[in-house]
Amino acid sequence: MKGEIRQDATTGNWVIFAPDRGKRPSDFRKEKNGDAPAPPEYDPDCPFCPGNEDRIPPILEELPDGENGGWQARVIPNKYPILAPRPEDPGRPEGFYRSLPAYGRHEIIIESPRHNVEPEELAVPALTLVLEAYRRRWRAIGGEDPGLRVIVFRNRGESAGTSLVHPHSQLIAARLASPRQERRETAAREYYHRRGRCVYCDVLAAEEGEGARIVMGGENFLAFIPFAAEVPFETWITPRTHLPSFGMIAPEELPELAGFLKTVLRRLKKALGDFDYNYVLSARFLSPGSEVFSHWHLRILPRLTTPAGYEFETGTAVNPDLPEEDAARLREAES
Amino acid sequence: MKGEIRQDATTGNWVIFAPDRGKRPSDFRKEKNGDAPAPPEYDPDCPFCPGNEDRIPPILEELPDGENGGWQARVIPNKYPILAPRPEDPGRPEGFYRSLPAYGRHEIIIESPRHNVEPEELAVPALTLVLEAYRRRWRAIGGEDPGLRVIVFRNRGESAGTSLVHPHSQLIAARLASPRQERRETAAREYYHRRGRCVYCDVLAAEEGEGARIVMGGENFLAFIPFAAEVPFETWITPRTHLPSFGMIAPEELPELAGFLKTVLRRLKKALGDFDYNYVLSARFLSPGSEVFSHWHLRILPRLTTPAGYEFETGTAVNPDLPEEDAARLREAES
Repeated sequence: MKGEIRQDATTGNWVIFAPDRGKRPSDFRKEKNGDAPAPPEYDPDCPFCPGNEDRIPPILEELPDGENGGWQARVIPNKYPILAPRPEDPGRPEGFYRSLPAYGRHEIIIESPRHNVEPEELAVPALTLVLEAYRRRWRAIGGEDPGLRVIVFRNRGESAGTSLVHPHSQLIAARLASPRQERRETAAREYYHRRGRCVYCDVLAAEEGEGARIVMGGENFLAFIPFAAEVPFETWITPRTHLPSFGMIAPEELPELAGFLKTVLRRLKKALGDFDYNYVLSARFLSPGSEVFSHWHLRILPRLTTPAGYEFETGTAVNPDLPEEDAARLREAES
Repeated sequence: MKGEIRQDATTGNWVIFAPDRGKRPSDFRKEKNGDAPAPPEYDPDCPFCPGNEDRIPPILEELPDGENGGWQARVIPNKYPILAPRPEDPGRPEGFYRSLPAYGRHEIIIESPRHNVEPEELAVPALTLVLEAYRRRWRAIGGEDPGLRVIVFRNRGESAGTSLVHPHSQLIAARLASPRQERRETAAREYYHRRGRCVYCDVLAAEEGEGARIVMGGENFLAFIPFAAEVPFETWITPRTHLPSFGMIAPEELPELAGFLKTVLRRLKKALGDFDYNYVLSARFLSPGSEVFSHWHLRILPRLTTPAGYEFETGTAVNPDLPEEDAARLREAES
């Protein structure tokens, strides 16, 4: 058995690497996403396709495509939100159990008027507009209520939790400190107090020093598979600039980030075939205290494995792939 | 919008309840498990079926069925373990990143010689033997190395992460303190220091006082949907006895626990149809300090929803069902 347990320096979490797991037998045939018919460019039943604006809430933000007078990205409130600006239920202030009103924001970023265009198929200027929509909403919500923690994420494919095919991302902002955010902030703060440096700066330096997990590097960003990746082919796109929140990114860096995102997704697709994934962008809008010790980052999580009883109970991930081998495959998969 | 954010008193985690989520449209047709052909009683290709003992590692424990000289439950080492008693890799003691050898235990509890008998279809004495196998291994491993934290879990169905159909559970023992275990132990200890009582005793009292989330009660156990359930129909079977570890359960209580498990699974099946799930039993073997403040419990987690980007990034669960409504359905689903 060739196993190893690695610690993620940015959370303190341990991850179990079990490369022999891939050899185990299975009673289930793995179905390929590729078997499903490709969606059309326009679907008259899709609420996000142009012409169906009567089926969506009022548009919060729209970015023109700069060419033929159309739009590239649109932001709308989620019609079925998990959190809302003014929830009806006041919560239970008294009693043994505690609850809070479901206060926050839940928005949809429609990434293209076209029903079937994935981000890696967009031109870099168009994908830049999608990232600019994230940035604008991040700043707008932070301005409305600095106590809200913003997260932007994208669920691609049915096994990643998508319910609608039309390319879209989501934004959720909550007043909650989530368990993972707390661990990340505590780990970054403790690292700083112990060593006097930002743990993300040191991770970037360690990755560039070792090289084995790098996917690609550029002027302002580094893409790599983290030492303690939680899932096969988990890839981080991390800014070299010491910025705690995506909301603070300089607009002139967005085209390079869009290029990274497009290239990494294309390489993943070349290595894995058509694959489902989540990506997440996480950080607070402003930085009271701990966050000067951290960098925002974009985390791509392919959904190639199924978390089961052990992972649910412990929160400890089991990864059947070694990050160094996955990174080598992505370096070879030049697109 | 009828949302609410509830706190789990036993972990401190917040869970977002979003009952309107069920109304959203979907481009995907939900496939029923029931469409797959039922497995046969015996499969000559299955390594866990009798007669294929040359394909499995040596048996660690076998419990006779008490009737016709056969066996009911067998425990074997996992042939594709994530942790092993003596791993080959020594880990990296030096450098920026930390890693450990993949030390621990990973065992399989084969629950029946029959390939197609789920736990809720076993007679109570047979299911009691499965639980007795859990108890024996829990105690044996705790005796070998008290520093190992034992978890027993069952993955039922492909969407719950099973690779083999033959009814089996798994045991994993690690020296790691996982993020969820840490939160649970910290929450129980802090509750005790604040109020002088065990938080699980108070949860049981609150559930019996309120009644709305109870599924069934008995002499030594209470089954209920927790106030801050993380997934639809999450059900806990919790001992009334103040015992921190399943390894400490009195053997004479196992038949009642088996009866609870069988009945709760049957009611879930009646309410949900054929469904995939994980169940988990978690606690340390012996109790240094904090664990005198807690109860072990069996947690059943149906896999009806797909965690997506937000849940992966934050560790905060989003539950589209209200526990009170799920519990009412399980009370009505008498089997």
